[in-house]
Amino acid sequence: MAGAIVGRLGRHPTSLLLLTLPRHAAAHHRLHSPSSSQVARAGLPGACFVSGCVGQYSKMGDPSERNGHGALTRVLFCGPYWPASTNYTREYLQDYPFIQVDEVGLEQVPDVIHSYHICVVKNKRIDSDIIAKATQMKIIMQYGVGLEGVDVNAATEHKIKVARIPGSTTGNAVSCAEMAIYLTLGILRKQKEMDTAVNRKDLGVPVGDTLFGKTILILGFGAIGIEVAKRLRPFGVKILATKRNWSSDTLPSYVDELVDKKGGPEDMYEFAGEANIVIACMTLTSETIGIVDHKFVSSMKKGSYLVNIARGRLLDYKAVFDHLESGHLAGLGIDVAWMEPFDPEDPVLKFPNVILTPHVAGVTEYSYRTMAKSVGDTALQLHLGEAFTEVEFVN
Amino acid sequence: MAGAIVGRLGRHPTSLLLLTLPRHAAAHHRLHSPSSSQVARAGLPGACFVSGCVGQYSKMGDPSERNGHGALTRVLFCGPYWPASTNYTREYLQDYPFIQVDEVGLEQVPDVIHSYHICVVKNKRIDSDIIAKATQMKIIMQYGVGLEGVDVNAATEHKIKVARIPGSTTGNAVSCAEMAIYLTLGILRKQKEMDTAVNRKDLGVPVGDTLFGKTILILGFGAIGIEVAKRLRPFGVKILATKRNWSSDTLPSYVDELVDKKGGPEDMYEFAGEANIVIACMTLTSETIGIVDHKFVSSMKKGSYLVNIARGRLLDYKAVFDHLESGHLAGLGIDVAWMEPFDPEDPVLKFPNVILTPHVAGVTEYSYRTMAKSVGDTALQLHLGEAFTEVEFVN
Repeated sequence: MAGAIVGRLGRHPTSLLLLTLPRHAAAHHRLHSPSSSQVARAGLPGACFVSGCVGQYSKMGDPSERNGHGALTRVLFCGPYWPASTNYTREYLQDYPFIQVDEVGLEQVPDVIHSYHICVVKNKRIDSDIIAKATQMKIIMQYGVGLEGVDVNAATEHKIKVARIPGSTTGNAVSCAEMAIYLTLGILRKQKEMDTAVNRKDLGVPVGDTLFGKTILILGFGAIGIEVAKRLRPFGVKILATKRNWSSDTLPSYVDELVDKKGGPEDMYEFAGEANIVIACMTLTSETIGIVDHKFVSSMKKGSYLVNIARGRLLDYKAVFDHLESGHLAGLGIDVAWMEPFDPEDPVLKFPNVILTPHVAGVTEYSYRTMAKSVGDTALQLHLGEAFTEVEFVN
Repeated sequence: MAGAIVGRLGRHPTSLLLLTLPRHAAAHHRLHSPSSSQVARAGLPGACFVSGCVGQYSKMGDPSERNGHGALTRVLFCGPYWPASTNYTREYLQDYPFIQVDEVGLEQVPDVIHSYHICVVKNKRIDSDIIAKATQMKIIMQYGVGLEGVDVNAATEHKIKVARIPGSTTGNAVSCAEMAIYLTLGILRKQKEMDTAVNRKDLGVPVGDTLFGKTILILGFGAIGIEVAKRLRPFGVKILATKRNWSSDTLPSYVDELVDKKGGPEDMYEFAGEANIVIACMTLTSETIGIVDHKFVSSMKKGSYLVNIARGRLLDYKAVFDHLESGHLAGLGIDVAWMEPFDPEDPVLKFPNVILTPHVAGVTEYSYRTMAKSVGDTALQLHLGEAFTEVEFVN
């Protein structure tokens, strides 16, 4: 399996470097030598430790004596979806028997969580009742960006650290941006009608639409929005974007080359009226739930397209449905839905120009191997009482 | 309908200019004032006339007296596929009753072609037997790039001019390039498996692959290949390209920024060994038929992807099939097939990672409205005995 990992990750220069080193050298590199650029990219102030963990785990002595000691660091994945997250983390850690990686279905989590030191959530929320049972827990993480799956206040109350894997460094933003382009092109070209034409032995129909010449509004100009804009630039489009705070130091220096018109949240309705395509890239918060509502969608141009690769509940279902039904929206491409998994028989999917993908925007070899490294290294660092180099703590 | 055309083409600045003028002013502009930049973009040496047409058509007098004269210029589209080509040309010419646009199925063409002055072919070939019957024919064109549909020698023999619509100026190259990106992302993300996951109510599968980090070989670096490379650049890829003649003056000045490694046809096997994705953008000629053969595909990396948006017969069916079956090819995305329309039950479409679209790479509102203008203006120019500004003659 190690060979397989090398082969696949070999496409990513950094990973190639790590994984083609002899295994022990690689482990050493991972654990002791995060480059300053890695730290800088992650936006970390520097080394950080989880209070209370270091003492406990550093007592376990030399990790080279790990065999037979029985002192395990246990990592629990809350299943069953996104199976590659567990599998890839397990593969990454396969030579470290002192780290145990398990996955159980969410309904079993309350029964077993007391035995684990790290919990990795996916889409379903770990609430305060479950967190209260996590008596040995040190760190809760979410595989991917966002932390909607964690009750951060409850974790803080129980002295459990909550860690975020930065999307800009793991390939998540890049992967999501590629998916946004794919879904946009898919609805512009009328994917379902193309399939119908093939099956009917028709040719040269449907007439699609180009990105070329379009105005695109990116809602939320964070790590993903930036990567979307970079990729859209040479398609010959005009780019509008809204963001709460344009003075953020996470913006690239060349942001003005990427965006033709910058606005705050208050500008989104006006911008929608200028755009042919809207791509939602926002974080889901209490302020952004349902932000793509009737007022917003009706502000969009007649015949415009809507894409969502962020979180399903950014979109108001009824507003979107009604505007598809009236023909105001010419197409909808979504990787995320209102409920997940989404009912494949839901009426919104019956419109000929609606595409749904199974919440895989960030699910790529590149992103998932890199995040497996983030989780794996965090587990190793917790076990060894070392500085955490891969994650940002939010509490 | 005119309003609809204005609205749609309004996305393209040049078309907006033309179509928002009052109709007669627009007609005047179209017929009398091709800008020097339009001529330059089309790569035309300057004004050109079809020998023999000017006299005949200029005898018809003032075109403002067209009503009731009965002197028609007749345009024949060879159907039945790509219906928008006929429909859009008819819409473009709707205010010029002295131009008649008809479409018949290819099997009827021999019976009616003697009545027509312009013939527009699509994918099926007009051979010398049919051309011999075209006693009033002045110009044969193909809607789209390529002229495989015309027996140019037979046309020359019968003193019929053959005209090419330059793909670089009509939006055809841009449209095809967008389709190449769509198909590439579709096979990287495993489109069919995504659909299966949605229908099974699964989430977070399949694990896709990114463009990021990949090496891409563009076979044929003409108008389409250039547009593909421009759009791929910011995806974080390495670009290799092969082309017969790199000293061509049709190459943009910034070609070295687009291509990391340039080669001739003899380099394609070596380049295939370096690439993760191969995109075929070549013209189909006697030299390129079946060029993606066993030798080529087996030179590609194991686990690599193949995309074809040019012509179906560039690919050797058996070579591609066998390498999909063995798993050597990880995916195939094609807009063009070996026979068209292609049998939807063909075994090659049963592989889970093969996508076929119905030969629509160039079929977009932008490209098709612009080509309708090229055909329409050519018909008007033939009728009025004016210089041809939209097409290049090849004989």
